Amino acid sequence: MIQNRASVVSIVFHSNDGSLIIQNPHLKSLSSDNLYHLALGTESHDLPVLFGDVKFVCVGGTNQRMKSFAQYMANQLNIEFDNKDWTKASHRYSMFKVGPVLSVTHGMGISSLSILLHELIKLVYYAKCKNVVFMRIGTCGGIGVEQGTVVITEKAVDGLLRPFSELYILGKVVRRPSICDQELVSELKFIAAEDMVDIPTASGTTLCALDFYESQARLDGAFCDITAQEKVDYLNQLKAAGVVNIEMEAITFASMCRSAGISGAIICVALLNRLNGDQIASTKEYLDELQTRPQMLAAKFIRKRLAEYKTQK
Amino acid sequence: MIQNRASVVSIVFHSNDGSLIIQNPHLKSLSSDNLYHLALGTESHDLPVLFGDVKFVCVGGTNQRMKSFAQYMANQLNIEFDNKDWTKASHRYSMFKVGPVLSVTHGMGISSLSILLHELIKLVYYAKCKNVVFMRIGTCGGIGVEQGTVVITEKAVDGLLRPFSELYILGKVVRRPSICDQELVSELKFIAAEDMVDIPTASGTTLCALDFYESQARLDGAFCDITAQEKVDYLNQLKAAGVVNIEMEAITFASMCRSAGISGAIICVALLNRLNGDQIASTKEYLDELQTRPQMLAAKFIRKRLAEYKTQK
Repeated sequence: MIQNRASVVSIVFHSNDGSLIIQNPHLKSLSSDNLYHLALGTESHDLPVLFGDVKFVCVGGTNQRMKSFAQYMANQLNIEFDNKDWTKASHRYSMFKVGPVLSVTHGMGISSLSILLHELIKLVYYAKCKNVVFMRIGTCGGIGVEQGTVVITEKAVDGLLRPFSELYILGKVVRRPSICDQELVSELKFIAAEDMVDIPTASGTTLCALDFYESQARLDGAFCDITAQEKVDYLNQLKAAGVVNIEMEAITFASMCRSAGISGAIICVALLNRLNGDQIASTKEYLDELQTRPQMLAAKFIRKRLAEYKTQK
Repeated sequence: MIQNRASVVSIVFHSNDGSLIIQNPHLKSLSSDNLYHLALGTESHDLPVLFGDVKFVCVGGTNQRMKSFAQYMANQLNIEFDNKDWTKASHRYSMFKVGPVLSVTHGMGISSLSILLHELIKLVYYAKCKNVVFMRIGTCGGIGVEQGTVVITEKAVDGLLRPFSELYILGKVVRRPSICDQELVSELKFIAAEDMVDIPTASGTTLCALDFYESQARLDGAFCDITAQEKVDYLNQLKAAGVVNIEMEAITFASMCRSAGISGAIICVALLNRLNGDQIASTKEYLDELQTRPQMLAAKFIRKRLAEYKTQK
């Protein structure tokens, strides 16, 4: 197996000023780097000028959600929202910038997220951003937590309950731990407990599934080979194993942040409690309202950090 | 291991009239089915009236590409293009309808495609479409084929060169063959040879990678633990094993079509020859032009089939 960077404690991830040390020696020999899926590049854009002040990179599934998060952050930070989509020309993702906050769509699933994170990590590196935190703010199915609960991921596991991502590189299996930054998890739990008393919150293990239907033991996909009882038994087994929610990106988000030496957190709202059913049947308006809950927690964290930076100056 | 439907020859996939028999007994007990990521449903929409005439379901990565394909098909079939995005309310995918052709975005990667295919297969079933063919028209990196080559997939393999998709269902590994419909492959090869003489075409094995960078042995991701020589050796090994291209959706597309009993084909244009480099550096205009090549082949096939149906009547 290839050397697993994330488990090597001697690696230095940051310079003294908090800027990222990139873990790819080949980048130095590129005359320019085209971040293809972002439609940004080191030659076409002055990345340090455009993005050097970024401190928080927030990612989520849909354009609608990440645009509304950008608008919300503009309001929270008293910054005018310019509505500019920085990655529009790529036709892949959308990216909005509000002062020190980037709000970016990642699409659905580990592969779509992976492309984005590779290019965002390179962006943060080329732009010489300092002490950057990454957050995924998303939606999930709850396991034993009620609809509307905000779930903070402690570690992500795959469908075999293994706490690592698995990639095939040069025809070999490469595994990387998918444990979140526990200090950041504690900080978010503290803020949620202190400052979001009316909203149910939970933390624990997140199962990252490869699909929405069969891997999540849903009975309503185009195929299904399991019985209703097998589904219930399985979801109860997950609950007993400490799984609090299921989504489709956590394992890649956690392992890539860790491999890059970036502090990362995953905050998702449960759109339903899977122990009660499979279909997401609430009104669109109510589901849209629920999706603002992880945004609220992220915003409270960002404002707290920014206030701390101000005090330190 | 759970019974693998795709390898059971006795399963009946179609009624006498060519409509699909869905491989999920639970759907019968649903009072209504909400195709959540399409923003369509059996209660909210009269699916047989709206989509019953669909014969070709074409999917591809980006909104831009699938909208331009829909416009192209409208022109080819002499139908007015109405520009209506049927899944707009989902904020996930885009879907355009041009007579018997659906043109739908799938985002990037196996998970995003999987959600779409589950819901498209259910759509085709509820709408009572007959003799439907699914096609993925996309982009890829070529292995030993030049930029601009149109590649038809014969079988899809994963990063360990295994010809099956792998899902974790109820905590167990489930594998499903990812071989394409060989008759359809032959038909497309014939059309390409007869009717697209100026455009290079190839067919063979498609490697479906989990990410764009490390799994594809690129040296320009945010991390890289391999040397330039290891990359070259690996890509040459792939070529020797019959791999003609690398993309990120084929294994799920092929195995889901097969599991559903749907004839499916994958047609991708090579945006670069990976034996020559990693970065996609051509002009956007030229890359956009290349992306029309799989569309041309799909359109020729669709027109041929429609002419055959007309003759049969």
